[in-house]
Amino acid sequence: MSELYAVRRGRLRDRCAAAGSAASLVSRPANVRYLAGGAPPGAVLLLGPDEDVLICPGTSVPDPGEGRPDDRLRITVLPAPGGDTVVAAARTAAAAGAESLAVEETHLTVARHRALGSVAPRLRLGDLSGAVEQLRIVKDEEEIASLRIAAEITDQALGELLESILVGRTERHLALELERRLVDHGADGTAFPTSVATGPNAGLGRHRPSDRRVEEGDFLSVCLGANYRGYRCEIGRTFVIGTTPADWQIELYEVVFAAQRAGREALVPGAEYREVDRAARHVLAAAGHGEGLAPKTGHGVGLEIEEDPQLAPAAMGKLDACVPVTVEPGVHLPGRGGVRIDDTLVVRPDADGGPELLTITTKELLAL
Amino acid sequence: MSELYAVRRGRLRDRCAAAGSAASLVSRPANVRYLAGGAPPGAVLLLGPDEDVLICPGTSVPDPGEGRPDDRLRITVLPAPGGDTVVAAARTAAAAGAESLAVEETHLTVARHRALGSVAPRLRLGDLSGAVEQLRIVKDEEEIASLRIAAEITDQALGELLESILVGRTERHLALELERRLVDHGADGTAFPTSVATGPNAGLGRHRPSDRRVEEGDFLSVCLGANYRGYRCEIGRTFVIGTTPADWQIELYEVVFAAQRAGREALVPGAEYREVDRAARHVLAAAGHGEGLAPKTGHGVGLEIEEDPQLAPAAMGKLDACVPVTVEPGVHLPGRGGVRIDDTLVVRPDADGGPELLTITTKELLAL
Repeated sequence: MSELYAVRRGRLRDRCAAAGSAASLVSRPANVRYLAGGAPPGAVLLLGPDEDVLICPGTSVPDPGEGRPDDRLRITVLPAPGGDTVVAAARTAAAAGAESLAVEETHLTVARHRALGSVAPRLRLGDLSGAVEQLRIVKDEEEIASLRIAAEITDQALGELLESILVGRTERHLALELERRLVDHGADGTAFPTSVATGPNAGLGRHRPSDRRVEEGDFLSVCLGANYRGYRCEIGRTFVIGTTPADWQIELYEVVFAAQRAGREALVPGAEYREVDRAARHVLAAAGHGEGLAPKTGHGVGLEIEEDPQLAPAAMGKLDACVPVTVEPGVHLPGRGGVRIDDTLVVRPDADGGPELLTITTKELLAL
Repeated sequence: MSELYAVRRGRLRDRCAAAGSAASLVSRPANVRYLAGGAPPGAVLLLGPDEDVLICPGTSVPDPGEGRPDDRLRITVLPAPGGDTVVAAARTAAAAGAESLAVEETHLTVARHRALGSVAPRLRLGDLSGAVEQLRIVKDEEEIASLRIAAEITDQALGELLESILVGRTERHLALELERRLVDHGADGTAFPTSVATGPNAGLGRHRPSDRRVEEGDFLSVCLGANYRGYRCEIGRTFVIGTTPADWQIELYEVVFAAQRAGREALVPGAEYREVDRAARHVLAAAGHGEGLAPKTGHGVGLEIEEDPQLAPAAMGKLDACVPVTVEPGVHLPGRGGVRIDDTLVVRPDADGGPELLTITTKELLAL
């Protein structure tokens, strides 16, 4: 198992060496976890010329499985209470004879960057930003297996909620109930704060649950996801409360459903990110809902709930096989509510049956 | 109400002017909230020479009450999807004729700092780090009222848990149950992830709940807190499961209880931060538990769960009246478990009755 992390670090090292950096310092938590197999909060990973060191803060109590040493990886815990992990990494790199150090400028603060420069003034500082994120885009089958389990748990939690009485309950309570069920079914936690939106709130992306109660005739949209072994998935569904949906509700639902299907069908290896976005966006625009749309139609998922690629109008790049993404178009009509439909899928070649749908809860318009 | 935020910004402006900065840029979320009365994620606050501007990202949907405009405060939302709020702030400051701009170097990333410098190359960049945090230490009575409600909610949630059956339930489930009860009683959310620790885990600060089940004879320690209107409090208690505690459990509990009382009694205006820490730490050390203690005995609470002051051996500074802090010593015996007792209190002068205890759940050793 720990072999896997050594391979990933080897890939990063090759990349940094090609860019002229002998050593690199990874501080972004998801990147540290990707390369070291888990890490306590505040840990940083130094990839040095001869060995790699996971430097944990003195206040940390590493959980079992956090930081798996291997032939190249050493783990150190700073003496409590003190010492900045970034500063310790700079000292270690300098002591190992490194002349340059690439850091994650999009994560490191100005103050820590300055501290690093002052303890190791001879170290030439470069930028590593985005390099690990790029490696993380294409997942291996073990990562996809974790996402698959995360999605199963998510489908189960949502399925159980649909069997319960919803009218009269608040957004906040329904969100908590969903989160409890995620953990009941084996999630390590939620992938992101669960969103439950009723009536005029429905269809808003990432709406924060309020004390509004579910009422007859409402649209109800939910967005949730499990975190399983660090891997995070996402599902979003919209329902109608009551016996029969109104005509405008059926119409709006059909438009968003068609847009979401168009986005899903555009998920083929080699497709440009922005083509996928355009496929979904075009359907909404053609139905007169082109204004006020969210800036993107989907995004990568993995150790973070929003990672590369971005499925957005200005995104550059093409999909590869084994890239998990969300497809989540939505329309919100101010004052009335709206619809969002959101799946997590893995890009697969046609020969393998096309995109693999991980979140399998029905997308029919259910009246609950 | 919005007057309040204008007064706070005025205080910061005076301070920055004295330090030679005409304009300042606040990016740390709790600081933005403190000065503008709430802000959507990603918003930054520019304090300019003539007006203040809350700059919200284009993807944000400000909640009601997020960002309250007043005579000096203007709110702008960047066009979706794009544009960095920090870059927009730099442009606004330069356009307003500012020559220098103080930024929060302990929060701003190297990449954003560089982007800021490149769009406004004539702006002299300074450091604002810690200035707002310093203003936030002493709370006004309205802030303390919010903390008091947060503590009431927390006591209620904990009290209800104590009436339920605990044996056989997992740490994870008990933590979720507590969080649900916090929200039931009116919390806007949790102040931090709830910690429930049983058996050998008990007494560990910030233990992440696992699937371990509560067993007869266990120590059970819990740490939780409500977030009410942004203000966060903290309570920690340790119980024994079963009919009668073992002798070692009673002994250990008494030591930690005495340490916590000593810490509480040291909370007087004018006391040095490290004196408070020493008061509690000394009791533990005298009983032979001086090794392996947490690096601090307590900390300030407010818009963040861990803010200044730090009650720690090397902390510099003295307590003022109206500073809310936690007092939370603990001892953990590897393999056996341990005890932590944690209260939130407000420093008050003796004339006002001494420290005000916000978290009033009993600290007797309960056998549940």
